[in-house]
Amino acid sequence: MASEKQIRANLKNVIIPEVERSILDLNLVRKITTNENKTTITLAATALGPEVQEYITAGIKAAMNPLKINDTTIEFTEAKPSDLNEVKYVIPVMSGKGGVGKSVVTSLLAIALNQQGNEVGIIDADITGSSIPRMFGIKKRPLGSDTGIMPVATESGITVMSMNLLIPQEDSAVIWRAPLLSRAITQFWTDVLWGKLDYLLIDLPPGTADAPLTVLQSIPITGIILVFTPQGLVEMIVKKAINMAQKMEKKILGVVENMSYFYVSELDRKYELFGQSKGKIMAEAAQASLLATLPVDPELARLCDDGEIEKYKSPVITDLGKAVTQAVQKVGAVNK
Amino acid sequence: MASEKQIRANLKNVIIPEVERSILDLNLVRKITTNENKTTITLAATALGPEVQEYITAGIKAAMNPLKINDTTIEFTEAKPSDLNEVKYVIPVMSGKGGVGKSVVTSLLAIALNQQGNEVGIIDADITGSSIPRMFGIKKRPLGSDTGIMPVATESGITVMSMNLLIPQEDSAVIWRAPLLSRAITQFWTDVLWGKLDYLLIDLPPGTADAPLTVLQSIPITGIILVFTPQGLVEMIVKKAINMAQKMEKKILGVVENMSYFYVSELDRKYELFGQSKGKIMAEAAQASLLATLPVDPELARLCDDGEIEKYKSPVITDLGKAVTQAVQKVGAVNK
Repeated sequence: MASEKQIRANLKNVIIPEVERSILDLNLVRKITTNENKTTITLAATALGPEVQEYITAGIKAAMNPLKINDTTIEFTEAKPSDLNEVKYVIPVMSGKGGVGKSVVTSLLAIALNQQGNEVGIIDADITGSSIPRMFGIKKRPLGSDTGIMPVATESGITVMSMNLLIPQEDSAVIWRAPLLSRAITQFWTDVLWGKLDYLLIDLPPGTADAPLTVLQSIPITGIILVFTPQGLVEMIVKKAINMAQKMEKKILGVVENMSYFYVSELDRKYELFGQSKGKIMAEAAQASLLATLPVDPELARLCDDGEIEKYKSPVITDLGKAVTQAVQKVGAVNK
Repeated sequence: MASEKQIRANLKNVIIPEVERSILDLNLVRKITTNENKTTITLAATALGPEVQEYITAGIKAAMNPLKINDTTIEFTEAKPSDLNEVKYVIPVMSGKGGVGKSVVTSLLAIALNQQGNEVGIIDADITGSSIPRMFGIKKRPLGSDTGIMPVATESGITVMSMNLLIPQEDSAVIWRAPLLSRAITQFWTDVLWGKLDYLLIDLPPGTADAPLTVLQSIPITGIILVFTPQGLVEMIVKKAINMAQKMEKKILGVVENMSYFYVSELDRKYELFGQSKGKIMAEAAQASLLATLPVDPELARLCDDGEIEKYKSPVITDLGKAVTQAVQKVGAVNK
């Protein structure tokens, strides 16, 4: 008779293609009972439409064959996504100022953490200006049912939820008043089946108004990453964000300077396009460490536009990943 | 006996220093009656605190001296700012995407129109990320009373209203929910004494949510200027803004490409930092003309940081001004 452990090991092979994750990693497997040659597997039906349920049922039966279990009963039970989600670290990427590269930094960080072997998800909380799906070139649509919705996997297996995955065309305008926007963000946390994740990154929209407020108030976050560019103006506005984080007693994991310089190899010269580096000043203002200093790189811009950010090769990615895992160790997990 | 025309000419010299505009240009002079040697001037008390009323009273008496009018009575009457404001062209500068340089483009355009001899005002509608006062280095505080508030003049006489002029410190966070933000923007239109203006530019925050909606719904606009950078991502998001403008049946005056390239003079080479120019594509998408193509210029960034944007010298400014006045001629004034 196969042990529960063996059964679980084989259930690892039952993958939902749109999410590229197994039903175990999605925390859908609620109970396994075996007696004599009869096995009952209880699954949460969360976010699973009838077709997906059928697909999973067939997948489980196939996965049980090698264990010589022929009499498998699969039962579905109701559960809320929030009961199934187990996320270790929740990290909002924030700036106060728009266009400083929050989405790029969020994406590069997700890639770095994923390359370290972590399970990583991204909430694209910039509802009216979603850009994550475009950068990763995601064409799939999220699966879902009345009880929830599933994120969509990128090429390398990062799972993403974004308003742009839900609207008819990527350039349709989302003309929503703020309460609706805030509700959408909260739903990306409560109604999306993330399952077990090591890191959930949240790409926040600019400003210190509704969306950041909602995230900081209603989601149990590990710590914030602040992104800025070396302009004095940005410094002022990002200080507003620091101010807000401090008022709300939220930890700041660190700061990232983006668009710090442009390197012209023919002249071996760095041009500080937007002013002198503010890395040290901002780290001091945030009372946190400078996690990375990123240059302007036309190659990165091109890959983002082509939906191929995962093909970007640069030591800045690994360095960023290391710096963030170190910062996180100091703070500790939200939910182990 | 001095004619009303002569009296008006002399009232042109009664200037409110904070706004650098005369009581005539602010439309505060409501009625002038003269009989024998007695002159009565009726002024709106709008936005005038008691000290400013005294200051103006003294100023008017001094201005009447050369006309040998000694017996001047000054009466104050109540009026709402919206009854006194006469603005020919109202132009929101919008983008959908943050950080593409809306505030810089708004400021450069204001400078250009001002240099043409126009009276120009700017509403900084980016309540949580106000940057206009910083770019112009405005240190003054707005005057006001129970009945309204006055904008503040820049070095060259452009009048500005911004949340950053009202908060205690420029890096205090404005943590407001959207209804408050929308009300603040509406108030910058209804409760600010702009007086007679040729152009009122509105620097909108990013997104297609509350602030842009409020402006497009509640302020009688001439036409929108859309700012973008050559990234594909920005293209997508700016198309959302175009989509929104079209849905709301608002005219688009034209589009401006910002951060189009970086010119390295040593190599006589233009680097397209953020991708190939999208000027033509965006103009077609907006069914409007390409008003300007602006480079990345570290000198401009420095002047913005130092609060000296008015010292920026570049042919792009005059060209931008010309292109916008031409575009406006086609559409016609809101309020002559």
